[in-house]
Amino acid sequence: FAGGVESLDYEVIENYAYREEQAQRSKFWVPYYVMLKWLFSLLIGVGTGLAAIFINLAVENFSGWKYAATFAIIQHSYFVGFFVYIVFNLALVFSSVYIVTNFAPAAAGSGIPEIKGYLNGVDTHGILLFRTLVGKIFGSIGSVGGGLALGKEGPLVHTGACIASLLGQGGSAKYHLSSRWVRIFESDRDRRDLVTCGCAAGVAAAFRAPVGGVLFALEEVTSWWRSHLMWRVFFTSAVVAVVVRSAMNWCKSGKCGHFGSGGFIIWDISGGQEDYSYQELLPMAIIGVIGGLLGALFNQLTLYITKWRRTYLHKKGKRVKFYCSKDNEYNDLATIFFNTQDDAIRNLFSAKTFHEYSAQSLITFLVMFYSLAVVTFGTAVPAGQFVPGIMIGSTYGRLVGMFVVKFYKKLNVEEGTYALLGAASFLGGSMRMTVSLCVIMVEITNNLKLLPLIMLVLLISKAVGDFFNEGLYEVQAQLRGIPLLDSRPKQVMRNMSAKDACKNQKVVSLPRVSRIVDIISVLRSNKHNGFPVVDRGQNGESLVIGLILRSHLLVLLQSKVDFQNSPFPCGPGILNRHNTSDFVKPASSKGKSIDDIHLTEDELGLYLDLAPFLNPSPYIVPEDMSLAKVYNLFRQLGLRHIFVVPRPSHVVGLITRQDLLLEE
Amino acid sequence: FAGGVESLDYEVIENYAYREEQAQRSKFWVPYYVMLKWLFSLLIGVGTGLAAIFINLAVENFSGWKYAATFAIIQHSYFVGFFVYIVFNLALVFSSVYIVTNFAPAAAGSGIPEIKGYLNGVDTHGILLFRTLVGKIFGSIGSVGGGLALGKEGPLVHTGACIASLLGQGGSAKYHLSSRWVRIFESDRDRRDLVTCGCAAGVAAAFRAPVGGVLFALEEVTSWWRSHLMWRVFFTSAVVAVVVRSAMNWCKSGKCGHFGSGGFIIWDISGGQEDYSYQELLPMAIIGVIGGLLGALFNQLTLYITKWRRTYLHKKGKRVKFYCSKDNEYNDLATIFFNTQDDAIRNLFSAKTFHEYSAQSLITFLVMFYSLAVVTFGTAVPAGQFVPGIMIGSTYGRLVGMFVVKFYKKLNVEEGTYALLGAASFLGGSMRMTVSLCVIMVEITNNLKLLPLIMLVLLISKAVGDFFNEGLYEVQAQLRGIPLLDSRPKQVMRNMSAKDACKNQKVVSLPRVSRIVDIISVLRSNKHNGFPVVDRGQNGESLVIGLILRSHLLVLLQSKVDFQNSPFPCGPGILNRHNTSDFVKPASSKGKSIDDIHLTEDELGLYLDLAPFLNPSPYIVPEDMSLAKVYNLFRQLGLRHIFVVPRPSHVVGLITRQDLLLEE
Ligand SMILES: Nc1ncnc2c1ncn2[C@@H]1O[C@H](COP(=O)(O)OP(=O)(O)OP(=O)(O)O)[C@@H](O)[C@H]1O
Ligand SMILES: Nc1ncnc2c1ncn2[C@@H]1O[C@H](COP(=O)(O)OP(=O)(O)OP(=O)(O)O)[C@@H](O)[C@H]1O
Ligand SMILES: [Mg+2]
Ligand SMILES: [Mg+2]
Repeated sequence: FAGGVESLDYEVIENYAYREEQAQRSKFWVPYYVMLKWLFSLLIGVGTGLAAIFINLAVENFSGWKYAATFAIIQHSYFVGFFVYIVFNLALVFSSVYIVTNFAPAAAGSGIPEIKGYLNGVDTHGILLFRTLVGKIFGSIGSVGGGLALGKEGPLVHTGACIASLLGQGGSAKYHLSSRWVRIFESDRDRRDLVTCGCAAGVAAAFRAPVGGVLFALEEVTSWWRSHLMWRVFFTSAVVAVVVRSAMNWCKSGKCGHFGSGGFIIWDISGGQEDYSYQELLPMAIIGVIGGLLGALFNQLTLYITKWRRTYLHKKGKRVKFYCSKDNEYNDLATIFFNTQDDAIRNLFSAKTFHEYSAQSLITFLVMFYSLAVVTFGTAVPAGQFVPGIMIGSTYGRLVGMFVVKFYKKLNVEEGTYALLGAASFLGGSMRMTVSLCVIMVEITNNLKLLPLIMLVLLISKAVGDFFNEGLYEVQAQLRGIPLLDSRPKQVMRNMSAKDACKNQKVVSLPRVSRIVDIISVLRSNKHNGFPVVDRGQNGESLVIGLILRSHLLVLLQSKVDFQNSPFPCGPGILNRHNTSDFVKPASSKGKSIDDIHLTEDELGLYLDLAPFLNPSPYIVPEDMSLAKVYNLFRQLGLRHIFVVPRPSHVVGLITRQDLLLEE
Repeated sequence: FAGGVESLDYEVIENYAYREEQAQRSKFWVPYYVMLKWLFSLLIGVGTGLAAIFINLAVENFSGWKYAATFAIIQHSYFVGFFVYIVFNLALVFSSVYIVTNFAPAAAGSGIPEIKGYLNGVDTHGILLFRTLVGKIFGSIGSVGGGLALGKEGPLVHTGACIASLLGQGGSAKYHLSSRWVRIFESDRDRRDLVTCGCAAGVAAAFRAPVGGVLFALEEVTSWWRSHLMWRVFFTSAVVAVVVRSAMNWCKSGKCGHFGSGGFIIWDISGGQEDYSYQELLPMAIIGVIGGLLGALFNQLTLYITKWRRTYLHKKGKRVKFYCSKDNEYNDLATIFFNTQDDAIRNLFSAKTFHEYSAQSLITFLVMFYSLAVVTFGTAVPAGQFVPGIMIGSTYGRLVGMFVVKFYKKLNVEEGTYALLGAASFLGGSMRMTVSLCVIMVEITNNLKLLPLIMLVLLISKAVGDFFNEGLYEVQAQLRGIPLLDSRPKQVMRNMSAKDACKNQKVVSLPRVSRIVDIISVLRSNKHNGFPVVDRGQNGESLVIGLILRSHLLVLLQSKVDFQNSPFPCGPGILNRHNTSDFVKPASSKGKSIDDIHLTEDELGLYLDLAPFLNPSPYIVPEDMSLAKVYNLFRQLGLRHIFVVPRPSHVVGLITRQDLLLEE
């Protein structure tokens, strides 16, 4: 994989330390654990809600100040006002670029592809750090406040995930905030659940759409899902909704400064068109097709631009970023001067406003904004694609609506409704979300009656888009070198066996009791992250006794307490000198490296018995299982290593449903 | 397991026949298959929508006739009118009981536990037959039209599942409707996806809640879920919504007879309370607690009653059923004479009607209806628990609302809103649904603003209910002997190994080339459904070469074409005399039995080479893997058999994420 990307260990490693901890647990452990899980869900909800409020208020207030200042100056001189406006915006955007490039590089972009990768099983370096969280929050305030053609929704999802992950570690390890008693969510597995909650919370906060948040996490982001997790995710979203609602009530009293309404997107079009005739289905289908085409084109263009920018950046350093962000100022200049994007969208969706926009100005706006959105995408600022997508979509949607009004004169057609459908179609054509997008659209417009129409448009735009390329997040993940595993195996895998997939491998394994120097040389000679451990059975035959992870080996080599003089197994009754938390991977994902290990000549000659530390039962598959089946196993259980083994000589037992129906 | 319940085979059996069919597929096969899948989703939607409309119209029309007739007669004689009314209801209920007991026994009850079991991996005999479908439709018309304390929602889910399954087989095999070219959904795996669509369609049709349908299928019913299935399920639900909407438009023109509004539940309370103060949260939480308590009590009482009835039935035969159904007539008599339940609920939810009901009459109604619902539950008629649950819940919800109005005098409180929350709390306390219930409530009331309140109430009622017992469907599934596997392994499994789970087993296996008489004796000597097949390797060591299913062995024994004279393997180049459809299990689930096989003495002496027919790569686990891990494997991949094998002697290869990132 690309640098900085590494798989996560979702598997429970049932080594001595783990089993001992399990055995030592008091009977209060389970209730405590459950309580803590729910407490954390609550805290994630509150934290994400507060972060969203903070970002929104900051953006709204900056816009307010900007407006007030420009307005005051413009009375005296048109030119100075314009100049101040530009300077204000540039300052905001540059501060965002500065924060991200110098302080939190992982905060650039939307963050959703990375989170998606995380929940699919690959960790990108640094995405869930405290500094990333801070960079994301302040960076998106700068970039959105500075009027770029991007939104704060994607960044909010990332923010939610960061908050969840930091809570799970009991605070940031680096800034010494971590407290011991809450650190029981140490495995990647537990952290995954928290991050899922965080994701849903982010969407719930961004759109004030709690159900949409749950569905987004479910459909778009996670790769594994259990129904009891749904309940917790749902709770988190509900908490976010309540927090945001309270804050907005509080702001109504005017305590929040300029533009104090909080700026949460809610486009209430409930006064609009409630019913539709069958004739209208054709233009609506056309909107779907347009959405699919423009969405697919958007994905493709952003792909090219990002690639081009990457090679260019490589040569010229940071200058390009500044160039791009300056470029985007045209956005505001050319279109809606003092409006925030939320207000612009509110106007586009508005009902009862026939011909408020001329077709010409809409087309101009569409072309300009589309280009700007493409160019802005992938700059070094936190950037969401929801709001630009909604802007683009609602513009051509409104265009179609105007055409329909002209054409079918007698119908009770509302252009605002068409704008909404356009927005849905563009998001569907670009992000390829379905159920979650549909629910989000319904929740932000507060109009259930349009559901079948939104569904229709989404069906079409997604199908059209899928014909051309993959969804935006998949394309972006690929670009960033995040190797996502799709939910279905590829067709070729059906005709391959597991053995075919590892045909050219020379398996590197370790004996149970290894000399330190041998271990070091194995670790140096390759980059593999897991090694089978082989032992001799009672009759001298060789036996695979488990899998040891590179990271665990490095921990053992560094701590040195387990080194022994004799080359023989240490026996089962050894004192356990480690607890599981010693082996926990730091959240920064850059764990120890073999170069950090410094051993004396004497120590190199000692031995290490690996048996207490290995994973005694990794998943195994027979060598002629088809790769498609192996893929399903790997994907659905979220594994990191699978052993391909020869056919067994006999079957010890058969497990069926009956054997798993134990009573507790 | 109990009689008539059997596991499903979700695994792909990669035997010769399968591989040959895969190889022979033209390049048009994949597009054809995809097209057919979507076509079927469409048909399922249309079919379920039409079934729902039919049931609703029939029920509404029966109620209408009943009303008209009684009203006409009552002008002359009060007593005769009353008598006619009773006779009318009894006739409907008896016809329902008659249909179910004599024609389609699998149509009794709600059907949701059985469907849930089906999607969890166990097939109950006869639940997806054509006769069950017919029985369900006409049975629920009789029982709901006859005024029993039950609804048509659960039955609609079952109806949708039946339609889906029948479509998947290309019609009912028994009634010779099956056509060859559509029968490509023959594996249990494909049928599972269709049934999931059917489920969602049922809910979507019952409540006109397409998103709720998708979520119901996702949260409550299925045990496996892939995100690309979500898209198809969503499509099906959308189709249902459109079909139902069109039919209702058509009915508005008065072509549908009495009560022609179609009778789909839509309780529009959008005129009601939009906002709430924090003081109101306490009474709302109390509603949640009441819901949890009454719901848990409901589950417990229905459990006892069903148990009691079962033993009683055992002695007295069918009479009990008649008795029970007569008993339920009190429902209508005592409460809402001529109203359908939908109308009663509409009244309870209605806003702006302070003190329309006296507290006393509500309490009386609550007690009576609760008892009736408990008694009716589990009679031999198709019965849904949604509508009774909503009735019960909204009654006590309204009671609390009346109390709140009295107590906090100044607030703008609507009793209808409290009724709605009560309904949500009872359903949450009894069925323990969360996200899906929430969305369904929002969709049927058409009021998004209440979402946080519904969430709060559901959180509390589910938590309270969970404290006492399991959800209604789980309790019922247990009663009916459907062994559902929970999504999490039991705690004890963490300390057990795979070997422990099959400690007392003497594995029954077959040699690769077996004598017919040996096969027969193995099949007769036990009831196992799968057998490991063992062969000798090149050096004479024994090798497990796969798993053969009992059902496949029976097919082979019956067809006889593969019998051979020599006791040696038939070689790889054999002519394949079977295609996969020969091995397809009939949907009736009662496959062949060993007693159906009749062989001559000569044939018994012949041999059969099992190699071409077995599953060459069943999933295997090493014997000391913890049972919790085995459970996860079994549950998440939907398996039927897992081989527990000794530790491997060496590792042939290691598969990691990198090896699965093939380009196509
Ligand atoms: N012990 C080993 N012996 C031989 N080949 C191995 C061994 N471990 C891994 N490989 C192979 O080397 C390649 C890279 O292995 P690696 O362990 O880096 O996994 P990965 O897919 O890169 O995921 P990650 O490094 O994030 O865990 C894979 O093709 C894998 O099959
Ligand atoms: N070939 C076999 N040899 C020994 N024991 C077996 C064999 N097959 C199954 N068993 C054991 O017998 C019991 C019942 O097996 P059976 O095959 O009937 O499975 P089941 O759990 O009842 O599910 P189903 O019958 O629906 O497939 C289980 O405990 C299983 O472990
Ligand atoms: Mg690697
Ligand atoms: Mg059995």
